[in-house]
Amino acid sequence: MGKPTLEFWYDFASTYAYLSAMRIKAIADAAGVDVLHRPFLLGPIFRAQGWTSSPFNVYRAKGRYMIRDMERLAAERGIVFHSPDPLPQNSVGAARVALVALGEGWIAQFSPALFELEFAERCNISATSTLEKAVRRVGEKSGLSLDFARVFERSTANEIKGLLRAQTEAAAAAQIFGAPTFRAADGELVWGDDRLDQAVAWEAEL
Amino acid sequence: MGKPTLEFWYDFASTYAYLSAMRIKAIADAAGVDVLHRPFLLGPIFRAQGWTSSPFNVYRAKGRYMIRDMERLAAERGIVFHSPDPLPQNSVGAARVALVALGEGWIAQFSPALFELEFAERCNISATSTLEKAVRRVGEKSGLSLDFARVFERSTANEIKGLLRAQTEAAAAAQIFGAPTFRAADGELVWGDDRLDQAVAWEAEL
Repeated sequence: MGKPTLEFWYDFASTYAYLSAMRIKAIADAAGVDVLHRPFLLGPIFRAQGWTSSPFNVYRAKGRYMIRDMERLAAERGIVFHSPDPLPQNSVGAARVALVALGEGWIAQFSPALFELEFAERCNISATSTLEKAVRRVGEKSGLSLDFARVFERSTANEIKGLLRAQTEAAAAAQIFGAPTFRAADGELVWGDDRLDQAVAWEAEL
Repeated sequence: MGKPTLEFWYDFASTYAYLSAMRIKAIADAAGVDVLHRPFLLGPIFRAQGWTSSPFNVYRAKGRYMIRDMERLAAERGIVFHSPDPLPQNSVGAARVALVALGEGWIAQFSPALFELEFAERCNISATSTLEKAVRRVGEKSGLSLDFARVFERSTANEIKGLLRAQTEAAAAAQIFGAPTFRAADGELVWGDDRLDQAVAWEAEL
């Protein structure tokens, strides 16, 4: 049997997914659990529920509350949070680069690097220059030789576009309705950064 | 200065408010914080957001997930959870009796007693017999002499009806959009049973 593996489903536009992306590796490592990154798009799932934007824009009081909640949690955890503009960001290009990274084995470094640019440094993740910055940081930290022009071109190939659509369809089929969502090997779904420890413990005990 | 007091806003129809009602006293006591119970109705707040029922009915995948989440949390905490039928329950009568209890000083006993009947024993809280059972249990535990016929008649007086409407309007004015919500003396809003400890700590540190 292989190592227990927890699926981490996230959209780069999700504020709470930022919280999980910054700590999932440490928590999973401590429990002897591997993480399978599964970037997807919430947009089509929200639209199927009748929302034309993030629920935090559709429901204003909830949106205002979410920012305050994120500020408190970031302060508790000693990380930086600045609400990006616009919120949510367009995360299609980011998800496509992430799928290239998934295929090549550097998504565990790319994901927190891009989330940090978005929510700590307020870079617009729909800008190619931001994606380039994230890839460059991965290269610097990991020692991998990553040519951004090649990565970006690959991310716009039909194969990757189709893969992202398939990921999002798989999310909907798995009854995923928000992010972050964690899925254990037995199919157990656990939603929200608040439940990250519970999700890792569930997978470890299977 | 009086003792720090945290407001506990809840609707008896809320599953997650059940979790908080069963533990708020112990957590607040340990932190030297008083609890002010503020029962209100989510229905008008949800309708203002365009929902005709609980979001767990409007969004089915989220509703199915919520039941599973409650089952896991109840198991972790050693309490019983059975989803009532129908879900959500009509909580208008329950909230009115709670406001009588608030005025008379026994709401801290009534609230967990009724939540337990609803979510552990699957009693319908819109039935007068369930409200009576809860009031009887409060009397037995506290030694208070509570005549249910008197309590119930009082709960249907225009004064109590108006008080409940005022509570719900105050919730909307305070930007409350869900339950349970905790409000500290400085106006800080903290939403959800997941944040109960954070809310009590916030109030204690004011």
